[in-house]
Amino acid sequence: MKNFISLKDLPNFDECIKQAMEFKKNPFSYKHIGEGKTIGMLFFNPSLRTRLSTQLAAQNLGLKTMIMNFTNEAWALEFDDGVEMRGIRSEHVKEAAAVVSQYCDMIAIRAFASLTNKDQDESEIVLKSFSKYSNKPIINMESATSHPFQAIADAMTIKENITPHKPKIVLTWAPHPKALPHAVGNSFTRMIDYFDANYVITQPKGYELDKRITKNATVTYDQEKALEDADFVYAKNWASYSQYGKILRTDKKWMLTKDKMSLTNNAKFMHCLPIRRNIVVTDDVLDNENSLVIEQANNRTFAAQSVLKTLLDNG
Amino acid sequence: MKNFISLKDLPNFDECIKQAMEFKKNPFSYKHIGEGKTIGMLFFNPSLRTRLSTQLAAQNLGLKTMIMNFTNEAWALEFDDGVEMRGIRSEHVKEAAAVVSQYCDMIAIRAFASLTNKDQDESEIVLKSFSKYSNKPIINMESATSHPFQAIADAMTIKENITPHKPKIVLTWAPHPKALPHAVGNSFTRMIDYFDANYVITQPKGYELDKRITKNATVTYDQEKALEDADFVYAKNWASYSQYGKILRTDKKWMLTKDKMSLTNNAKFMHCLPIRRNIVVTDDVLDNENSLVIEQANNRTFAAQSVLKTLLDNG
Amino acid sequence: MKNFISLKDLPNFDECIKQAMEFKKNPFSYKHIGEGKTIGMLFFNPSLRTRLSTQLAAQNLGLKTMIMNFTNEAWALEFDDGVEMRGIRSEHVKEAAAVVSQYCDMIAIRAFASLTNKDQDESEIVLKSFSKYSNKPIINMESATSHPFQAIADAMTIKENITPHKPKIVLTWAPHPKALPHAVGNSFTRMIDYFDANYVITQPKGYELDKRITKNATVTYDQEKALEDADFVYAKNWASYSQYGKILRTDKKWMLTKDKMSLTNNAKFMHCLPIRRNIVVTDDVLDNENSLVIEQANNRTFAAQSVLKTLLDNG
Repeated sequence: MKNFISLKDLPNFDECIKQAMEFKKNPFSYKHIGEGKTIGMLFFNPSLRTRLSTQLAAQNLGLKTMIMNFTNEAWALEFDDGVEMRGIRSEHVKEAAAVVSQYCDMIAIRAFASLTNKDQDESEIVLKSFSKYSNKPIINMESATSHPFQAIADAMTIKENITPHKPKIVLTWAPHPKALPHAVGNSFTRMIDYFDANYVITQPKGYELDKRITKNATVTYDQEKALEDADFVYAKNWASYSQYGKILRTDKKWMLTKDKMSLTNNAKFMHCLPIRRNIVVTDDVLDNENSLVIEQANNRTFAAQSVLKTLLDNG
Repeated sequence: MKNFISLKDLPNFDECIKQAMEFKKNPFSYKHIGEGKTIGMLFFNPSLRTRLSTQLAAQNLGLKTMIMNFTNEAWALEFDDGVEMRGIRSEHVKEAAAVVSQYCDMIAIRAFASLTNKDQDESEIVLKSFSKYSNKPIINMESATSHPFQAIADAMTIKENITPHKPKIVLTWAPHPKALPHAVGNSFTRMIDYFDANYVITQPKGYELDKRITKNATVTYDQEKALEDADFVYAKNWASYSQYGKILRTDKKWMLTKDKMSLTNNAKFMHCLPIRRNIVVTDDVLDNENSLVIEQANNRTFAAQSVLKTLLDNG
Repeated sequence: MKNFISLKDLPNFDECIKQAMEFKKNPFSYKHIGEGKTIGMLFFNPSLRTRLSTQLAAQNLGLKTMIMNFTNEAWALEFDDGVEMRGIRSEHVKEAAAVVSQYCDMIAIRAFASLTNKDQDESEIVLKSFSKYSNKPIINMESATSHPFQAIADAMTIKENITPHKPKIVLTWAPHPKALPHAVGNSFTRMIDYFDANYVITQPKGYELDKRITKNATVTYDQEKALEDADFVYAKNWASYSQYGKILRTDKKWMLTKDKMSLTNNAKFMHCLPIRRNIVVTDDVLDNENSLVIEQANNRTFAAQSVLKTLLDNG
């Protein structure tokens, strides 16, 4: 693969998961493969798990890391073509991407959705611009519309806890005080396509995800019905997609509780973190032994390591 | 030792100092001991000496470093249990600590006192929360109430300049325009317990340190009397402890001057830095050949290296 | 050389360029020379190219890097002597420089001109203070009045594109919405002294560079005349030097356009980046195959690597 922008860039999803699982057992099995090479990690947004796990994954492969918080350490970037650059944006991505790609052997980028401009977000302007003007692989560390590292880690976590029967996997919308992007919900949904699962998405009216992405899922407005006999419950907030970026309700009716979890088949609980306790989910669900959230985060390292290894194999 | 939160966590103080002194002579004597391991360094506050010296110490031992300015690079942390996380704190330390401890083999943390909430500061909520939810060693890079790396470096510096007679060591309060924590004064005082010294603390009324910590020291309000025949004078500001976090006086009467130093036994001058010139101390004292402040800072590297080595030996 | 503050510190300019060219062909030819040594990189201003290229150069030589954004990660520095440090500047450079130089084997610093205080800028207070109080080499990553890494990279780029005849090299002022320093214009001009070239500087009235620096150049107010038969055109904005730091005009008359470039001898276009499109230069000049800006940025790595290698040879 040239770039890793979304799951469909992977040459083979199952091989990627298998490689990630092997790295989890032996993180240093390819510790010299990246020697003499450097990954640039560019952050346009905060990051805890992604930053540390991707850095660790790179170091496990012998890569050097150069990390830049673009928003306060470098120059504000212009992405539009043909403009008179008179404002605060003092460098065009055309130069920035071409330049950085000379210093790095691969470039990983985190750039969240604006949630104000749907077209711009869906065009993935940051990642697309960098991949257009860079001659090195571009790696998605969460973009406007997808978070494929998270999805690979989630796939690993499901496999590690897979049921003997065809699993019922439920993605449920949950409340949140801030407007959040659709990236995690999108990538989780796309990832489930690789599983033989009964996949149900549930959300309140107005919070439906992009129908092009959810076309293979059962979508319902009845959260309790959705949770019945679930084996895995993934909770996640996102802002409205149809009324793009809007928060349509602020009540706690959709918060995931122990009572709701009792409807499931003793389901495992999943979330990508960070998570707001007693808003998205109650303490007793999150602190329950069925919660996989810490292991999901752990698997982030090996998900990234598997992808970086594949890119190094190509290069 | 499991964690390094305070001096009393050290299995053997004298061995720690001895090891630090050896690292000062040969920084690379254990340059492979940390190979394949990573230290996470988390900063909730500014840092110059601590950041660079701890990073250097880690690198001297072959450790990889991952550094994060928590306040602007990651998510604001919630430390209280059972709360509805509706505000700006978007991640609970319970998840953050558990997650980071999966990526790192040890976690070093800098988290100053708030100076607004004595109980919370004394509970060391940041370090204690991380050590509770992490399964890897937690290392104190200055907490609300203590700064043990500084104390070890100070002990090295005193040993390097020790008098043939039982030394008189004086810790004197000094003025400062801002309210500062008690961490350095506390740890210096605890450290002196390991020395055979005549230890005197002097400060104005209302600036007494925690009496549980100063119980073995002579405490006086007479700065000039305290300085008489001193062999070492450590100047440091701290806010009031009894009127917690308050600044009670703004005059310069307690500034350390050449005249005051002339009362001593040609004493060495010590301070942890950063220091405000001509507020805490006059230029002529700080620039005098008897000033040890630069060497104290130098010893920070080897103090940290000795502690990290001990933690690596355990792991 | 003890420090690398300006081009004249180089023991031999031609050897420096030659070494840089060799590193471009084989970046890892001295990959062990910096082992066990550490470069501290201190930033008082934003940086993209300088930060990444200097870090990469250091890593190519086996140096460890410690990077600090001084303005938000450490303490605000005081540079004046004898002051009562009562304000926001909590540490004097005297201590900071002495301390950092104990942790690092060399210290690279970026500290832009204030453009408000000509005397202070020309005294290069940041770099001079650090070199006064540090006992390790100080390296200029763009100071108030010069940017020698950029000049070396520019020299490499000119050599790579040198004409068979004595080249005409033109430095032209260009518009910009913000007041910018003179560092790049100064260092480019000083660098041209090492070339056998016809060197012309053109700028509007009031924008003349320091005459001490431009004494060997032909200086003209006629941009079109200057561009005639040029082989290299370097565009750059700077604020007024005589009316120090002021912006004297805001029109676009001096923007470099395709029409103006048609006056040249099919000249190569150069700029240090970041560049504001359609303000400094039109898209069609910047995107033309004659533009060398991306290669200039590429050469920054090898310029820095050559200088670091020379400093390591000395140490």
